Amino acid sequence: MKSGIFHVPYMRPERTPREVFDYSILIAREADQAGFSDFMIGEHATQAWESVPNPELVIAACARETERIRFAPMAHLLGLHQPGSLAIQVGWLSKVLEGRYFLGVGPGAYPRDAILRGQPADLSEARPRRDEALQIMKKVWDRKPFHYEGKFFSGGFPAEESESAEGAEFHMMPDFSPWKSPEDLEIAMTALSHNSSSMRYAGEQGFSPISFFGGLEVARSHWNMYVEGATSKGLPTDRNRFRICRDIVVADTDKEAKKIAINGGLGHCWRQYLIPVYKQFNILNGYVDDSGTGIDPADVDMDFIAEHIWICGSPETVIAKIEKMQDDIGGFGQIVMNTHDYLEDPKPWIESMHRIATEVVPKVRPAVPTA
Amino acid sequence: MKSGIFHVPYMRPERTPREVFDYSILIAREADQAGFSDFMIGEHATQAWESVPNPELVIAACARETERIRFAPMAHLLGLHQPGSLAIQVGWLSKVLEGRYFLGVGPGAYPRDAILRGQPADLSEARPRRDEALQIMKKVWDRKPFHYEGKFFSGGFPAEESESAEGAEFHMMPDFSPWKSPEDLEIAMTALSHNSSSMRYAGEQGFSPISFFGGLEVARSHWNMYVEGATSKGLPTDRNRFRICRDIVVADTDKEAKKIAINGGLGHCWRQYLIPVYKQFNILNGYVDDSGTGIDPADVDMDFIAEHIWICGSPETVIAKIEKMQDDIGGFGQIVMNTHDYLEDPKPWIESMHRIATEVVPKVRPAVPTA
Repeated sequence: MKSGIFHVPYMRPERTPREVFDYSILIAREADQAGFSDFMIGEHATQAWESVPNPELVIAACARETERIRFAPMAHLLGLHQPGSLAIQVGWLSKVLEGRYFLGVGPGAYPRDAILRGQPADLSEARPRRDEALQIMKKVWDRKPFHYEGKFFSGGFPAEESESAEGAEFHMMPDFSPWKSPEDLEIAMTALSHNSSSMRYAGEQGFSPISFFGGLEVARSHWNMYVEGATSKGLPTDRNRFRICRDIVVADTDKEAKKIAINGGLGHCWRQYLIPVYKQFNILNGYVDDSGTGIDPADVDMDFIAEHIWICGSPETVIAKIEKMQDDIGGFGQIVMNTHDYLEDPKPWIESMHRIATEVVPKVRPAVPTA
Repeated sequence: MKSGIFHVPYMRPERTPREVFDYSILIAREADQAGFSDFMIGEHATQAWESVPNPELVIAACARETERIRFAPMAHLLGLHQPGSLAIQVGWLSKVLEGRYFLGVGPGAYPRDAILRGQPADLSEARPRRDEALQIMKKVWDRKPFHYEGKFFSGGFPAEESESAEGAEFHMMPDFSPWKSPEDLEIAMTALSHNSSSMRYAGEQGFSPISFFGGLEVARSHWNMYVEGATSKGLPTDRNRFRICRDIVVADTDKEAKKIAINGGLGHCWRQYLIPVYKQFNILNGYVDDSGTGIDPADVDMDFIAEHIWICGSPETVIAKIEKMQDDIGGFGQIVMNTHDYLEDPKPWIESMHRIATEVVPKVRPAVPTA
């Protein structure tokens, strides 16, 4: 099993952009040194708790300060950008990183992000824009002449000009298609809701599926929708490509891990931001079902969350919880930890990160395949 | 007088994106240490010799490796991007750099850059797109609710949502307007051609004027057009805001400087790229006029270029040439050196950069005001 990092970024609203930027790079450096495989960064402009408008600015800075870890914007909200501009930026950055890059794509889920671009707040354009943008980006990466005028976007690729004897280099174009080839670019998508249609789409497109975990039944539904989409197009499926995102804290003892979680940035984020959001969208229900406690989702408190929603504990406890999840879901290839804002006292968080990559994930036994 | 760097980037077509990226940061670090005030980076996707599709990826990496120097994309080609996406990226990056940021804007001059976005190759949409995009960006920075549907772009800004007692932080928005305030963001534009209408526009808008030098008469026309534009709107003009870009090499002796120029990346760029381009667009004529030699522009050779187009020599020679230019043009506030591709042997180029910032520019006497 591999390990990854998801940096939403959950940073307190009072952090300055410079603090967010520097903390992002600190976490990426530590993740690189600890041995995580992947580092994913969100893209949002209108959520005070998720405040990186273009993840590639952070990734570019990380290119110079990391050696092995791969990076991805997760996700570029494709309907919110000019597809030709984004295509060449993605291709160029994948080359700057010499392949340590993959691409997350999504339609965007926050009405305010759409309003900022003059698009309908009901997000009715989000998916058709995503699809049209991706189609244009892929054509740009093919580097063959085309001109396309769609419902939302225009795009094209220029024909090679003839090389005059003098000034031939004036006519040359750089190659900003992805590292090695467009086919070598891994593309991934996330899903949150039960039976997410994004997962079916990811399967149809041959993308990698990522489950923002919301309970076992929701995670299973993500894989099932993915298989449904892939099968409908005759594409293979591989559980090693399936990533599951969780909040995880490791310390010497279960008690110590819970303390770091509840009293630190993880707990603060859930209290101030995620619990209200998750209650609003009924996302806590899946966790409550898994817990078998039968409590009302409205009554979940921090102790319940630390026990049943986060994965907190000693290395042994965390290994056991991940193995159980593996068996319950039927196997996945990468456990992804969400990062949190431990800016004021990063030490216990960074130690936990290192232990996850070195003491936990390498010891998780393979899943018992169920489907 | 201040000193600046213009990094087009003139990098040989065979350089990889990673080489371009790393060399850009090397030059920025050296410029920062030498004492240059500003570092500007171009944005092009379809010229093999000017291959940075988004200068802000480089600037973000430089944010961590420099301390005093200011950065600018020069220029963001506004018609080629989604204005809302670009507005928040610019604002965020200006905050990441804590004010060490200013903004270049332009319409785009290369047909292939337009074709890539599905726009007319005759660039007929370039200026109206620039104007509409800038209008939207400024409204986004104002952070007041609006919805705008223009000829080319849509944009908007969401209204503040009411803060519920629970989940108030879900409703908070980050502030991605420029550092301090939108009014504190310096905006600049470049001009190349004689009597460039871009300079009148810059004057009308209160932007800073930058002359890509093409001879004294052309540079004077840039300032005159700028004053014309500013005066028409009742705006003040200040020659300290006027930047002039030149190719400059300093060494112990005139002979040594010319050798570094002709045999290095500067000479290679002119031979392979700029002479053919400049001949095609009649840009050499202004230099030939200044030289008083009366030669046919078709006959200029590298010795002519080193003597009459570049500013090469000992510190004393270079100081004298800049002072003469100051008097001939009537004064300007910043001499900007174009960077070139000395990747294989950076030492003489970097030494020249340091001497320009420390031995030349501080000793240039103020201009005799002429207008």
